[in-house]
Amino acid sequence: MELSLEIELNVRFSDTDAMGVVWHGNYLRFFEDGREAFGAKYELEYLDVYGSGYFTPIVKSEINHKAPIYYGDKVKLITKYIHQRAAKLIFEYQIENIETGAICATGKTIQVFLRAEERTLDLNNPDFYQKWKNKYLTK
Amino acid sequence: MELSLEIELNVRFSDTDAMGVVWHGNYLRFFEDGREAFGAKYELEYLDVYGSGYFTPIVKSEINHKAPIYYGDKVKLITKYIHQRAAKLIFEYQIENIETGAICATGKTIQVFLRAEERTLDLNNPDFYQKWKNKYLTK
Amino acid sequence: MELSLEIELNVRFSDTDAMGVVWHGNYLRFFEDGREAFGAKYELEYLDVYGSGYFTPIVKSEINHKAPIYYGDKVKLITKYIHQRAAKLIFEYQIENIETGAICATGKTIQVFLRAEERTLDLNNPDFYQKWKNKYLTK
Amino acid sequence: MELSLEIELNVRFSDTDAMGVVWHGNYLRFFEDGREAFGAKYELEYLDVYGSGYFTPIVKSEINHKAPIYYGDKVKLITKYIHQRAAKLIFEYQIENIETGAICATGKTIQVFLRAEERTLDLNNPDFYQKWKNKYLTK
Repeated sequence: MELSLEIELNVRFSDTDAMGVVWHGNYLRFFEDGREAFGAKYELEYLDVYGSGYFTPIVKSEINHKAPIYYGDKVKLITKYIHQRAAKLIFEYQIENIETGAICATGKTIQVFLRAEERTLDLNNPDFYQKWKNKYLTK
Repeated sequence: MELSLEIELNVRFSDTDAMGVVWHGNYLRFFEDGREAFGAKYELEYLDVYGSGYFTPIVKSEINHKAPIYYGDKVKLITKYIHQRAAKLIFEYQIENIETGAICATGKTIQVFLRAEERTLDLNNPDFYQKWKNKYLTK
Repeated sequence: MELSLEIELNVRFSDTDAMGVVWHGNYLRFFEDGREAFGAKYELEYLDVYGSGYFTPIVKSEINHKAPIYYGDKVKLITKYIHQRAAKLIFEYQIENIETGAICATGKTIQVFLRAEERTLDLNNPDFYQKWKNKYLTK
Repeated sequence: MELSLEIELNVRFSDTDAMGVVWHGNYLRFFEDGREAFGAKYELEYLDVYGSGYFTPIVKSEINHKAPIYYGDKVKLITKYIHQRAAKLIFEYQIENIETGAICATGKTIQVFLRAEERTLDLNNPDFYQKWKNKYLTK
């Protein structure tokens, strides 16, 4: 079973730069929008995770730009959860221009589980996350 | 005695927008640069304040734009401490184009003293701030 | 007749700062969201304005903070168009916590009309804006 | 010969998030600071490039986070130019905590040459860039 989610992005004028297109660094905010919408749908919101005693800092992020986004473009983001055994959250992203169908960008982020209080890494799947996996990832 | 400080600003390409000029909201980051440089010079850094048990959230900010800043412009910021009896931090700002002398913007911020733990407002000057006033504001 | 618009805001984790609340400068992005939603509803979008040959840079902005916004708070923004004869766009803003009803912030922005090509100020109401006023502001 | 540059970073309070550390997306602004400082030293500034008729949009960026940056940390960034024959600008980055020596993050960006007016890709090294390579990369 594949867990993924599609949202339309809200591109702000302030997201653009003097080349007239969305500044490349702002795509990480779009990916953040994707993760938050994913969490809202699949019960894995930041505040759920935090309520379980964890932060999930990003340890790796990657963006590949294929086509620019202009202010006024209608764009959508597909956020896909990538299953793995390790205590990680891996998402892949694809941003598409809704009108032309062009792929604007792809990307990936990897998050780990940090105990919020001690700020130490949990190398095993925290209980709440294992339960979440059991619920959403088994057939 | 007037306490003020002048710094040259670091204008990033990512500060610009599709009009080709610095996006208006980014001026609040420049004001922040001014306050941090002021704090570094006059022993009133964020971490000093926090070490004394306080946050100083901004309760009012204001920007007046006179002329745009283009990427590549050399600009400086003057940050001026405005003395008052109340338990507030008030700064006024002026951004100038170094080459033309034009005033790009003026502004103002007001901060109050919040006890960091209880998150309650201190209506009196906290001890550390009164001492600071005694040191820097008396002739 | 009063022109105003209410939207629910999308508060991102990246909008917060180390005090655990939304960083004050990000409110100007929320006001931007309000103006864009207003423009979408009342035919006064950035691209409409630009298509008529104008930019509408902000010449003044002001934020008054009453209560913090925490990540996860549900907040709404009311954007109100303030009518005046001059060739200006004036908006007033109010951000409210949906659950508690508390007012988090109020604010104001003033925009002027700049001919996009010459980058010169138009002190009179541009035709397209006069027509817009005639359509929306007369009873 | 290796072309690289080291700068101390200016970490703003507004760069932090509610975890109390610099928000991961802001590292792309630090990398931007590195490229601009590199350009200033090695005659390859954005405005030089633009003056030659080109934009150099980022087509790929990557960040690997090893240790968090707290507000108040002294951190430095090393920006290294990676030589290649193709018409690309490739930089690798390393952010280090000055006091502890810890590596906070590494990263990489790839830029291509876009003719500013036509917005078309130049697959060959533009003249000005070939001259730059001849000057800086030959013994």
